[in-house]
This record gives sequence, C-alpha cells and structure tokens, in this order.
Amino acid sequence: MNNLTPRPLTPDAFSAYGEVLETSGHQPIAINNGNCQRFSDLVSLDIDRSGKAGVSLFDAKPYADPLTLRYVERHPLGSQAFFPTSTDPYLIVVAADSDGIAVNPVVFVTSGYQGVNYHRNTWHGVLTPVVKRSLFVVVDYIGEGDNLDECHFDNPFIIDFSAVISR
Amino acid sequence: MNNLTPRPLTPDAFSAYGEVLETSGHQPIAINNGNCQRFSDLVSLDIDRSGKAGVSLFDAKPYADPLTLRYVERHPLGSQAFFPTSTDPYLIVVAADSDGIAVNPVVFVTSGYQGVNYHRNTWHGVLTPVVKRSLFVVVDYIGEGDNLDECHFDNPFIIDFSAVISR
Repeated sequence: MNNLTPRPLTPDAFSAYGEVLETSGHQPIAINNGNCQRFSDLVSLDIDRSGKAGVSLFDAKPYADPLTLRYVERHPLGSQAFFPTSTDPYLIVVAADSDGIAVNPVVFVTSGYQGVNYHRNTWHGVLTPVVKRSLFVVVDYIGEGDNLDECHFDNPFIIDFSAVISR
Repeated sequence: MNNLTPRPLTPDAFSAYGEVLETSGHQPIAINNGNCQRFSDLVSLDIDRSGKAGVSLFDAKPYADPLTLRYVERHPLGSQAFFPTSTDPYLIVVAADSDGIAVNPVVFVTSGYQGVNYHRNTWHGVLTPVVKRSLFVVVDYIGEGDNLDECHFDNPFIIDFSAVISR
C-alpha cells in the first residue's frame, strides 16, 4: 500500500518545498502602454556563488500511468525553477528530508501555466510530463561541483494519476 | 517608404543584438535515465551587480497588422531573455545604436519555440505577439535604478507582417 495520489499544486501546500511560479495571486505591473502585464520576480533564485544562474531548456518524454517512483534527487548548489511551454498538467514530486534520507514523498499535479522553483537542496522527482513530450524553461545552477544527490527508496511508490489526467 | 519586412530569426542574423534561445543547434545532455534532454545554459545573462537576475512572466496582448513602430527601448542594467509558452510566431524588433540614438531597425519573426536574449543596452521593440494573447517567461534585471531608456523615431516605421503570419 505504497500508493501516492496527486493533489492540486498550490503555493500554500508547496511552501515547504519551494515556490509556485505562476501569475495567479500576483499583482502585475502594466508596461508597453498597457499592452503587457509584467508579473515580476516571482521566485527566489538561490544559486551558489561557485557558479552562476543559467537559462536552459528541458525536452522531456511523458510518463505513463501508473508511475513507479523509485528515487528522488536534490541539488545542493542551487534552487531550480521550471516553467512549462504548454498548459498540459504535469506531476511534481517532492519529499521531506530526514538526516539525508528522503521521506514522506508527496505528489502535486499542475493546472494550466504553473511552474515551480524547488528550494536549494530539496528532494524532488524528475521532470514528469504525463500528457505528451514537453519543453520546459529552466533556471538553475550552472558551474562546476557535484550538484546532484539522489535517494533511492527501499520500497518504490506507485503514483496513480488516472483520476487527475485525461490524456 | 519607411517599411520593414520581417525576416526569419537565426542566431547569425541576430548575433549583433543578442542570442537566440532555442534547442536547435545545441547539443543536449541526456538526464533522468534518458527520458529528458537538457539543453544547458543557452544564453549569457549579463545582470548589473546593483541588482539580481529574476524570473518573471509577461502576459501580452497581440498586435494587429500592419504595426506602426514608433519607438524602441533598451535596458542599461542587464540582458533580457524571453521564451514563449507556445509555438505561435511573434515579432522581434531590434536596432543599432548611433551615439545614443536607435538607428536601422530590423524585424525578425520567430519560428516555433524560439526565444531571444537581448544583450544589455541593446535597442529593441516591445514584446510583440501577433497571433493571440501570449505568456512569456522572462529572465532579466531586478533591482533599483533606472533600467529603461526609450528612443522615439521621428518618422515611425510600418511593419507589414501579413506575408509571414497567418492568424
């Protein structure tokens, strides 16, 4: 009975793990003679000074239902922000830490144009589109040093997302 | 006869003004057991140390054809990267500088998932979707200080994009 069920991604529910990157709930500034609404500085970039922040693109294949969650990862050298280039929902997996071990994983499902910014060194699952192959804009640490830590679960979790995703 | 015609956005044609933010032409790194291709660190962020780099979302209304280009702007305190959240083409206007005056504007049209990173202090037009209201991910300077310089043309330019955009 190691099953996980996705819940809606909201800033409050996600606050222990990072920030939700979205326009909702933020006050824009009108620019360009009112033609554009600027939602400014939406996440806290926390990038180790040994490197720099960089902009990357991630092109990821979709995962099928049900998904077996075997491990999570974290990045000691910086926060990691993702934003999708479509409104397709995708899954966000995060976990708490207990003395260097990932515990109590939880799963969120996005709605519309929602990204996330994982706090530095926060356990999270890999990028998980579930509708189709998808491109994401990513802002994270670029530099030398070991920025990847993985934790494999002794007993994998099963994520059944059939109830929240219609492919 | 102050007309401008959009040309395709390519890294070579754009190199005097900034970088094209795209996967094409870049070698990815396979991550997540081969499920994701990471196109890493695609643009040069050049952010003044008086502030910081930040991630923002711009929600812009579309412009109609033909477009009257009355002015361009530039940001003395940092580069400015844009990436679209759809494959709709949009227009990119840039101009050269002559002793603080914008000259010789040129217009590009994007194809698919193409963003740009304007070099710091490079003259450019406002964000210009032309198909529908569109959301863009933006990475630019966040901080105090006057980061906006505008140059209004004595004689506006007319951009006819009917040949390159089908709405």
